[in-house]
Amino acid sequence: MTTENSFAQILSQVRKASPLVHHITNYVTVNSCANITLAIGASPIMADAVEEAADIAAISSALVLNMGTLNSRTLKAMVLAGRCANKHNVPIVFDPVGAGASPFRNRAVHQILQEISPTVIKGNISEIRFICGLSSSTKGVDAAEADHTEDTAKIARALAAKQNCVVAVTGSTDVVSDKSRTVHIANGHPSLSCITGTGCMCASLAGACLGAAPSAPLHATVAAVATMGIAGELAHATAGNKGNGSFYTAILDAISKTNETVFLERANLYETCH
Amino acid sequence: MTTENSFAQILSQVRKASPLVHHITNYVTVNSCANITLAIGASPIMADAVEEAADIAAISSALVLNMGTLNSRTLKAMVLAGRCANKHNVPIVFDPVGAGASPFRNRAVHQILQEISPTVIKGNISEIRFICGLSSSTKGVDAAEADHTEDTAKIARALAAKQNCVVAVTGSTDVVSDKSRTVHIANGHPSLSCITGTGCMCASLAGACLGAAPSAPLHATVAAVATMGIAGELAHATAGNKGNGSFYTAILDAISKTNETVFLERANLYETCH
Amino acid sequence: MTTENSFAQILSQVRKASPLVHHITNYVTVNSCANITLAIGASPIMADAVEEAADIAAISSALVLNMGTLNSRTLKAMVLAGRCANKHNVPIVFDPVGAGASPFRNRAVHQILQEISPTVIKGNISEIRFICGLSSSTKGVDAAEADHTEDTAKIARALAAKQNCVVAVTGSTDVVSDKSRTVHIANGHPSLSCITGTGCMCASLAGACLGAAPSAPLHATVAAVATMGIAGELAHATAGNKGNGSFYTAILDAISKTNETVFLERANLYETCH
Repeated sequence: MTTENSFAQILSQVRKASPLVHHITNYVTVNSCANITLAIGASPIMADAVEEAADIAAISSALVLNMGTLNSRTLKAMVLAGRCANKHNVPIVFDPVGAGASPFRNRAVHQILQEISPTVIKGNISEIRFICGLSSSTKGVDAAEADHTEDTAKIARALAAKQNCVVAVTGSTDVVSDKSRTVHIANGHPSLSCITGTGCMCASLAGACLGAAPSAPLHATVAAVATMGIAGELAHATAGNKGNGSFYTAILDAISKTNETVFLERANLYETCH
Repeated sequence: MTTENSFAQILSQVRKASPLVHHITNYVTVNSCANITLAIGASPIMADAVEEAADIAAISSALVLNMGTLNSRTLKAMVLAGRCANKHNVPIVFDPVGAGASPFRNRAVHQILQEISPTVIKGNISEIRFICGLSSSTKGVDAAEADHTEDTAKIARALAAKQNCVVAVTGSTDVVSDKSRTVHIANGHPSLSCITGTGCMCASLAGACLGAAPSAPLHATVAAVATMGIAGELAHATAGNKGNGSFYTAILDAISKTNETVFLERANLYETCH
Repeated sequence: MTTENSFAQILSQVRKASPLVHHITNYVTVNSCANITLAIGASPIMADAVEEAADIAAISSALVLNMGTLNSRTLKAMVLAGRCANKHNVPIVFDPVGAGASPFRNRAVHQILQEISPTVIKGNISEIRFICGLSSSTKGVDAAEADHTEDTAKIARALAAKQNCVVAVTGSTDVVSDKSRTVHIANGHPSLSCITGTGCMCASLAGACLGAAPSAPLHATVAAVATMGIAGELAHATAGNKGNGSFYTAILDAISKTNETVFLERANLYETCH
C-alpha cells in the first residue's frame, strides 16, 4: 500500500503542476497524445520545426520523442530538442516506434541514443530487443515476439544499466526497470492494441508524470504505464462490447477521471529482485 | 433580439452556401478542424504544398492560417496562399497559435502580418498581447494571463484599428471587435480548454462563416465564436460528467445540430461602447 | 448468395491474415485510416520518409497511396514505395484525392500513373473523370458532379481497361469494375459525407482486403467498399440522430464488429453486363 501510494501520488502532482510537455511525434496519433496529456492534467505543446525545437524544449517540463512517422527533418528536430533538454535537465521520454522495421529507423535509433541521454526509453519487446542488439522481428510498428516476463525483465534491466535510464517494456505484463529496481505491471487489456496510439499515449503520460516528478523517474514511469493499463481496463468495462470507436472515447474519459483513489484501487504492481 | 438575429442568420447562410474553406493548419487538430467545418455545413480542404497553396486559395471561399505546428515549408505556403487570397478578396482567418512561445513563431507572426492582410485575427489573450507588442507570457500554446474583459476589449479594439481587421480574443468571456464595434460573448465552458483543438476549431468556424458572409466579417466572427461557446455548453450538459472523450464527441454532435434557433436561445452577447 | 459469399469471405481472410498495410497518406484523416485498418483486423503502418518508403513497402502486404495533403516530399515517397511494391507484387490502392483541384495535384496523378501500376484506383466521380481526361468539376476534395450510375459504370470500365486494374467509383451507388466484371453497391448513407475521411477509410479497407486476398482484387475491393457502406448504414441507425461526433464513433464500432454474417445480411450488390 505504501509502495502503491508513492506511485499514485504522482497523479496528484501532475494535476497540481500541470507541466508543459513538448512532443516531437508522429502525425498519426498526435491528437490522441495531446488529448491524453490534457486529460491527465498536463499541458501539451507539439513543435517540430528545427528553427524552434530547442527553444521549446528549453521552456518545457518534459520532452517526448516518438519516431512513429520520422523523416529526416523531424529527426534533426529531435536531436536539437533532445540536446537542449539534456542541457537544461528537462527529462526525455524516447519512444522508438518501429525500431527494427527499416534501416532508416534503425540508424535513427542509434543516432538519437548517441546524441541524447533519454530519461526513459519505452517500447514494445521487439523495439527494445532491437535496441539491445538482440534478434528481433517487428511486424511494422507492432511487436512480433511473444513476451516472456522473466526474459523481458532481464532485458529491461540490462538496457537500463547500459543507458543509465529507466526502461519500460510494454506487453501483456509491462515491465519498468532502472538499474536497481524492476516493477511489473499486470494492468491493461488486450483491446488496447485494437486502437492506434495507445503506446504513444503511454509515452505522453510518462512525459506528463516525469514533468511533475523529474527526480523520481522510475515512479513517474510506473505511474504512467499503470495509469494507461487501468484506463484500458475501465474503458473495456464501459465500452468494450460496443466496439473500437467507443473504446477509444472511453480511454480518454477514464484518463480524465483518474486520480490517486482509482490508481490505488486498481494498480496491480509487483517488484522482482535482481 | 434583432441584433442576435443578424448574427444567427449567418448559420443558415453557411448551410446554404457550403463555402469551401482552405486550411493551412497544424497536424495536431487538423482532423477536428475538417470535421467541425463539415459539421457547420461548409466544405474543408487542407492543402499546404507550396506548389498548390495559392491555387487552392484562389478557388476557396475562405482561408484559415493556423500556426500550431508551423515549419519553414508551411510558413512559405501560408504566405503564398495568403497573398493570393488577398488578391482575390478571399477572407483570411489568422490564428497565431503559440505567438510569443519561440523566436521562430514570433518572426513568423511578423512576417505574416507584413505580407498578408487578414480579415480576422483570432487568438487567446497571450497571443494577442504579443502581437500588440505588450508584455505577454504564454505557457506553450495556452494563455498564461488572467483575462480582464475591459482590458481585453481595449487591446482588441486597438489591434483591430491598427491591422484594419476584426480581432477575436478568446477567453472566459470572448471579445470580438472591429474598428467601430465591440461584442462580448459570455458563452462557453471551462471544459473547452480540457480538450485539444477548440481554439483551432473556432478559427475553422470563423472561416466557414466568413466564407458564407464575406461582407460582414464582424457578424461572421461573432457567430462563429458564439457557436463554439454554445457547443461547449451543450456538450458539457450532455457529456461533461462522462469525461474528455465523450465531451469531444458531444462538441461535434452539437455543432452538427446547431442552427438559428439554438443560437437565439443560447447566445449571450452584449456590446460595449468605445 | 454464392456470389455474396465470395465477397464476404474476404472479411474472414483479413482477420486471419492480419496483413500489414503500408499507408502514405494525408495528415487529416490518417488516424481514422489507422483505426479502420485495425478495426477490420489488419495492421497499419504509416511511413512516408523517402529514406524508408521503399523498405516498408517491400515488407508490407498492401500499399495505400492517398494524395489528400500531398507535397513534393511525400510524392517522391509515393513513387519510391509504389515502384518497390510493383516489383515485389505488393498490391497498391491509389486514392487520387482532389485530382482536378490544382495543377500540382493533376501533374502528380499523371506522374504516379506513369511510374506505378496500381491494383485499384478508388475515387469519387470527379476524380475518376479527371483521370479519364473527361470534363470534371471538383469542389476541393469533394465530387461536384451528379452521379448517373450507367455513365459511371462505363467510365469505370474504360479506366479499368486502360490502366489494367480495378476501378472503384464511390457515390450514392458505388461502382467497382475490372476489365470483365462490373459490380454495383447500393449500400451506404448520405451521412458518410458529413464526416471527414470516409473516402480515405474506404481506401484503407481496400488495402486490408487486398493484403489478405491479393489474387482477387475485384472481390477484395467490392468487399471493402460494401463494408464501408454497411458501416455507414449501421452507424446511422445507431447514432445518426445524435450528430456527427457520435456517427464517427459508430463507424469505427461497426467496422470492428463486422464479419461475414453482417455482410451477407446487408450487402446490396448487383452485377451489370458489359
